[in-house]
Formats: sequence, structure tokens, C-alpha cells
Amino acid sequence: MDPHVLDLSLDAAALTAALVDIPSVSGREKPLADAVETALRALPHLTVDRYGNNVVARTRLGRPERVVLAGHLDTVPIADNVPSRLDEEGYLWGCGTCDMKSGLAVQLRIAATVPAPNRDLTFVFYDNEEVAAELNGLGHVAAARPDWLEGDFAVLLEPSDGQVEGGCQGTLRVLLRTTGERAHSARAWMGSNAIHAASPILSRLASYEPRRVVIDGLEYREGLNAVGIEGGVATNVIPDDCTVTVNFRYAPDRTEQEAEQHVREVFADCGVAEFVIDDHTGGALPGLSHPAAAAFMAAVGGRAQPKFGWTDVSRFNALGVPAVNYGPGAPLLAHKRDERVLASLINHCEERLSAWLTA
Amino acid sequence: MDPHVLDLSLDAAALTAALVDIPSVSGREKPLADAVETALRALPHLTVDRYGNNVVARTRLGRPERVVLAGHLDTVPIADNVPSRLDEEGYLWGCGTCDMKSGLAVQLRIAATVPAPNRDLTFVFYDNEEVAAELNGLGHVAAARPDWLEGDFAVLLEPSDGQVEGGCQGTLRVLLRTTGERAHSARAWMGSNAIHAASPILSRLASYEPRRVVIDGLEYREGLNAVGIEGGVATNVIPDDCTVTVNFRYAPDRTEQEAEQHVREVFADCGVAEFVIDDHTGGALPGLSHPAAAAFMAAVGGRAQPKFGWTDVSRFNALGVPAVNYGPGAPLLAHKRDERVLASLINHCEERLSAWLTA
Repeated sequence: MDPHVLDLSLDAAALTAALVDIPSVSGREKPLADAVETALRALPHLTVDRYGNNVVARTRLGRPERVVLAGHLDTVPIADNVPSRLDEEGYLWGCGTCDMKSGLAVQLRIAATVPAPNRDLTFVFYDNEEVAAELNGLGHVAAARPDWLEGDFAVLLEPSDGQVEGGCQGTLRVLLRTTGERAHSARAWMGSNAIHAASPILSRLASYEPRRVVIDGLEYREGLNAVGIEGGVATNVIPDDCTVTVNFRYAPDRTEQEAEQHVREVFADCGVAEFVIDDHTGGALPGLSHPAAAAFMAAVGGRAQPKFGWTDVSRFNALGVPAVNYGPGAPLLAHKRDERVLASLINHCEERLSAWLTA
Repeated sequence: MDPHVLDLSLDAAALTAALVDIPSVSGREKPLADAVETALRALPHLTVDRYGNNVVARTRLGRPERVVLAGHLDTVPIADNVPSRLDEEGYLWGCGTCDMKSGLAVQLRIAATVPAPNRDLTFVFYDNEEVAAELNGLGHVAAARPDWLEGDFAVLLEPSDGQVEGGCQGTLRVLLRTTGERAHSARAWMGSNAIHAASPILSRLASYEPRRVVIDGLEYREGLNAVGIEGGVATNVIPDDCTVTVNFRYAPDRTEQEAEQHVREVFADCGVAEFVIDDHTGGALPGLSHPAAAAFMAAVGGRAQPKFGWTDVSRFNALGVPAVNYGPGAPLLAHKRDERVLASLINHCEERLSAWLTA
């Protein structure tokens, strides 16, 4: 099959349609990565590098600040929703329209149409974001070529309804185990009930007052919740084991260590027999106090919102690059069969970013 | 195959060995039921009836009191432990030695050797005790021929270590369900946590003080316990459903209705969204205040113990016949591969029952 050719002179909405029509389900991004690389190499003001199916293009203008615009090439599996189609109300339908080929289109349009930005630019296109974390292309580039990702501020063009979402919360999952001693339930006094022993844990959870904290003008709301509980041997046996699975979502002013310490303290006197960290990824500060970010906010307008879920802004944060999400897609339509994006919002996002980078 | 012939002139231990050597796993009791029926029909002082594989034999002496001696013909599956064998320490090994062919041997010996008892006697041999309750032969006879089971007092020769166990506790299983509203755990305030809502239930269970009550000189100890708990949708979702499975073991001075009412009251203000009776079988009063029982206790000696588990004495209780367990087997050896019974204890039980019925 002939390689796909991307025409970067199309407007961002039309370019989104062209990107949707090059399928790129996770693990099969090569044709799209090839097309993106070829299109970028045609732009003389950019230096282009490639690592696997990850493509990075940079200006080298010697500006005092560098901004990263990043997006993933892959989509969730196609669900009878390719090729794309534009309806009469101005919505572009199709797999990836929202998450996040509309964002990629904005990146490519900025790359093509802003040859002399007021800040140096780095464009990152990476693979395998929609699958297991260890496959994530941004993580692979960060590990192998961290210098490619250097910058003062990053914008991930993930779907955020054209609003800025700053930073992200951390998420910690802990297993709290209580133990007891088995006995026939007709002779309960011969044993010790591990489910009853979990009572102080649930009581603590039920009365826990989650913190709210303002960081860079964004209010983060934490949460400490049981997301699972399991105990019991048989209906006539006093159970000797019970496990409460707790999820702590925490604001990015806590380090991972502080978050763990906090959870240990909350349950310190609850008779927990075993405390197991099951999963943990730290948060990311919004970084909106940086001058590049402030200028970005002024240019794109609106009021920044905190991001509660976990996204790749956290990877940039780990590299010391404050990052936000800002993209034309609607988060609630991501991964849906009826995924779609308002074409005019794609063009609007391009225009706002362009204004920021040319002011 | 020729029908098995039982020689009731053997002593109770030798007769037990003969019974063990006629396999009678639940559902396959016919050969043993046939042998028992044939042996009893040879005794002129007894009237013999049969219903399925259930055999009932009665004296008709016009005594003022009637006593029922009952036992089940079936065993759990054989585990390389048939035929029986007697070891040099006097233990008879084999499937059913303990539960409860030693008890059946005592019944058959009394039938054969006490032709003119001081109380009229009813001997009951029934099938399918070790399997689902609806298959239980005693239940079938009770439903179809309740007059066959009439009596003033019943002794079930279930394994009880040669001690009298009086009555039995009731057992009630209830599902206590709490509900909430799902939400992403990063936005917990959008939902309502059903596991946290179970906190008052566990707290109530943990602080519950079970009652002790003395009935006919026996102390019963009740118990109210969680035997299972289950909740959770996914590790990033606020759960909307949690179920605590509670088992109430209660003394036989409570009726089934009172037991349910008690449990409802215990959890009345615990935010239970749904209260489901999952299983319920009432208890049985020990009936030791009846003159026949008092004479029985005097004859067999020892001190009666309450029965905490549920047994078929409850079926007799439901028919208005107070009942106790009294048999030579050791309860802890029932259903085990190394099931065994002390031969001398079988003969001792026969002698004690014989003494009671001929005094």
C-alpha cells in the first residue's frame, strides 16, 4: 500500500478527518507515525527525530523558553466508526476524532503554520497511550532520550473540551487486611471474626473529611474511598481474613511518600494486620505560575480546571516540565462508538495556540 | 448379588463392622435398608413399616410413654475406608463407623434384645441425611406418615462421644445490603460509597453482646456474625452495592419469628437498604424436663451439653417430640478418611440404653 500523505495546508478540522482515516489502534501506529514524520520532515524549520513509532520535531531558534506540544498517535479499537464523516451540524464523527486526532491536527497545523514562534517548540507524537503503562511511547522516549522532551512548559492536547486542565492528582491503592481465627459459626467464641475486625477501617473511611487545596488557583479535591471489600470462607464459618481495597486520590502538593504516610496515619489504630501498596502513581503540579503558562492561559482564555484523573501530564511533571491538558475533544465522548468532535472547536484551539505562540 | 443378612446376636461393635461392610453412600441406601428391614421383620414383637428406603419398627405394648430411637442409614462417600477393620487398641475403622453405623448397631441391638421395654419403642432408620435437606428421609416420613414418628421423647444416635447433647440452636442467615451511587473514584463526591455505608453494620456486629441462656439446665451461647462481605465494582469506581452476609445462631427458646425480629431490630438504624432472609431453620428445645428424658439422663449418666450445630433433632422438635443426640461416635471424626470409633463405647451405649429401657 502506498504511504499516506498528509496535506498540512488543510484546516485543522479537515486534517483531523484525514488522520482519522489512517487507522492507528494501539500497537499499529506505524502507518500514521510514518505519515506524520514525512509531513514534518518537509518543514525546513524543524529538526525531526524518531524513536520507534514516536516522532519528535523541534525548532532551534534559541528562544529563552521552550514549549512542548504533545499527543498520542493511537486510538482505542475501531468500532464501525472509520472512516470519519462530517454531519450537517458541524460534528466530525469517527474513532479518534475526540481522543485525540483533533489534538494531533492542531499540533501539525501549528508546526506547519508557525515557522517562527515566540518560544521554541517541541512537537511530540507518541504511541501506545491507550494500553498498559509500560508500553507508553512517551515513557519510552523519556527513558531513552530525555533531552528530546526538555522544555519549560508542556501542553498535552488530550480532550478537555477546549478548557485548560492543570496538573493531575496522584492515585494510591492500598490493601488493608484484617485477620482472625476460623471457627464454626455455631461456636463463634472459639474464633475471631476478621470481618468484624474491619469495622474500624470502614468507620474511619466513613468519617474521613477529604482535604480541598488550592494550587496555582486551582482547587483540588482529594478522596479516600473503599473501592472493594472481600471476606468470608463459607456461610457457617467465622472468617479469618478480610481485605478492604482503598483508593486515595490526592492533590499534587503531596509527594508519593507523603501520600503513603498520610494513609498509614489515617488507619494507624484500626487494627490493620497487613498494609500493602497495590498501585501508586504520583500527581503533577499544574505549573500555571510559570510565565509561559500564564501567557498561555491569557491567550486561550477561560478558567483552568484541576484534572482529577491521571494523564501523561504526570510524566512531564516527573521530567520537571509543568504540563496541562488543552484539547478540542470532549472527555465524555472519548472511547465511545459515537465519538465525535465539533469541527469549529478544533479550528478555535489551533487559532488560540497560534495566537499565544505568535503574540 | 445375594441380599445381606444381619446377625443381631452379634455384639454392638461386631454388628457395627457388619453394617460398615454394607456400603450405603447417600442415594444408595437400598441394600442396607433391605437388610435392616429383613432383620427387624424377624422380630415378632415389632411392627415394621417401610417408606422408600426408610424403615420404621414399633412395639405395641400400650405403655404410657413412647420413645423414638433414630438414625440415618447413609454415609458420606467412601474414601478407601471400607471394609472396616478393628485395630489392636480397640478402634473400629471405616466409613460410617462413627457417623453413624455404630448408632444404628445400638438401635438394632436394643430392638433385638429388649422385647418388653418399660416404654413403647419406635425405631427409625432413614436415608439421605448427609445431602441436601429436601432429600432427607426423616423429613419425607414426617411429611407422609407423621404418625409413625409419634412419641414423647426421641434419641438420635448421632455421634456425640457418648454424651447427651440436648436440643439444638436455630440458624438464620440474612443478607444486609447497602447501596450508593457509582462515580469515578477521582471524583468521589459525585457518588455515594456503599462500602462506607456498611460501616454501621460492622460496627453493630463488632459490639454485639451475644446472649447466654440456660434451658433445662443447658447453657446455650448465641452468636451473631458476619460470615461474608462483598462490595466493589472496579478499583477506580465508587461502589454502589455492598452485601454483608450475617449468620445468627440462636438458642431454642426463640421462635423463628422472634429470631428474625431480633436481627431486624439489631440492624434497624444501620442504613440497611435491603434485608433478605437467605436461609432459616429453627432450633429445638432440649426437652430434658420430660420424665422420660429425666430417666434417660439418670440412666446414661454424665452431664448433658447443648448442641450448637443443627441436627435432625430439630425435625422431631417440629413434630412436638423433644429430642437429644446420644451416640458412641466422636463428632470430630465424622466424615474423615480416618473415621473410627472405640468398640467398647458402642457396647457401653447399648448397655446404658438397655438399662434405661428395662429399669
